[in-house]
Amino acid sequence: MSATNILRLDHRRRRDARITTHVCLTARAFGASRVFLSGDEDKKLMDNVHDVTKRWGGDFLVEYRKNWDNLMDQWKKDGGEIIHLTMYGEPIQDAISPSKSSNKDKLVVVGGSRVPSKVYREADWNISVTTQPHSEVSALAIFLHMYYGGEELARKFEGGKLQVVPTAHGKKIIEK
Amino acid sequence: MSATNILRLDHRRRRDARITTHVCLTARAFGASRVFLSGDEDKKLMDNVHDVTKRWGGDFLVEYRKNWDNLMDQWKKDGGEIIHLTMYGEPIQDAISPSKSSNKDKLVVVGGSRVPSKVYREADWNISVTTQPHSEVSALAIFLHMYYGGEELARKFEGGKLQVVPTAHGKKIIEK
Repeated sequence: MSATNILRLDHRRRRDARITTHVCLTARAFGASRVFLSGDEDKKLMDNVHDVTKRWGGDFLVEYRKNWDNLMDQWKKDGGEIIHLTMYGEPIQDAISPSKSSNKDKLVVVGGSRVPSKVYREADWNISVTTQPHSEVSALAIFLHMYYGGEELARKFEGGKLQVVPTAHGKKIIEK
Repeated sequence: MSATNILRLDHRRRRDARITTHVCLTARAFGASRVFLSGDEDKKLMDNVHDVTKRWGGDFLVEYRKNWDNLMDQWKKDGGEIIHLTMYGEPIQDAISPSKSSNKDKLVVVGGSRVPSKVYREADWNISVTTQPHSEVSALAIFLHMYYGGEELARKFEGGKLQVVPTAHGKKIIEK
């Protein structure tokens, strides 16, 4: 399966810090390689996410890109494909298979409050996770879960300092 | 499939307003019947979610419960089952089938920052959605998606004023 990179549009430092952090941690936990952050540059947020990666393992990056516009153009020029998650798009249950049919690197765009029409136009697929309003965090989780076919749930994260040992009642954690 | 009700622990009005709103909207969009809100009473948040239901349809409630403790005890006395979503629990890929085997009403507990040990102890299942830190929003989305086997994606919400018409590129919305 090809790599998935996430583009988070229109991050606002004050209003979105926690939601965008959850977007980044969801991206990481469900197998994405990287988040491009657009909107406000937010070093604290990026440091927090990198700190989670250092403690919990795996390779995962958050990079700031002021110009999401150029990033999308370059992504397509380099032969990648763009998937935009939006409640107005085609149902994921229909669109997930076609979106997985090539092994081109994917840029998965998750919006802020106002998504420019260029994103709808340039995306190879506009995909909806239900047609109801909910959350970019859950839309991204469901997309990655269906994209990786559930295999992401058992993914190993190498090299971290902390590891959970699953247990029926309680908490068990290994510190390395 | 039995009804799912969500218990959101330890809501803090100032810090959690957006995350808890996303928890509520995710619960609604993915087929849960109700969210019990514990922690701070937050009338504005509850009004916002009820307003979404009025506009977008379906039956969905948010209720405040100061005493989550009593709610859990009563739930079990009434013959319901409790599922706690926690990164320390049993992997969802193993635990989802057993948790679906009865048709008893489910109370799905999603934590705040500190979850009391009673919750781990009293839950019929402590279930982890990956063993990595991410988001109660994505954990809930994946749980409900796996609980309802994907059927929630095509769920109809009757009686609302707004309806999205899925479309490949752009936005199409019907106002009734």
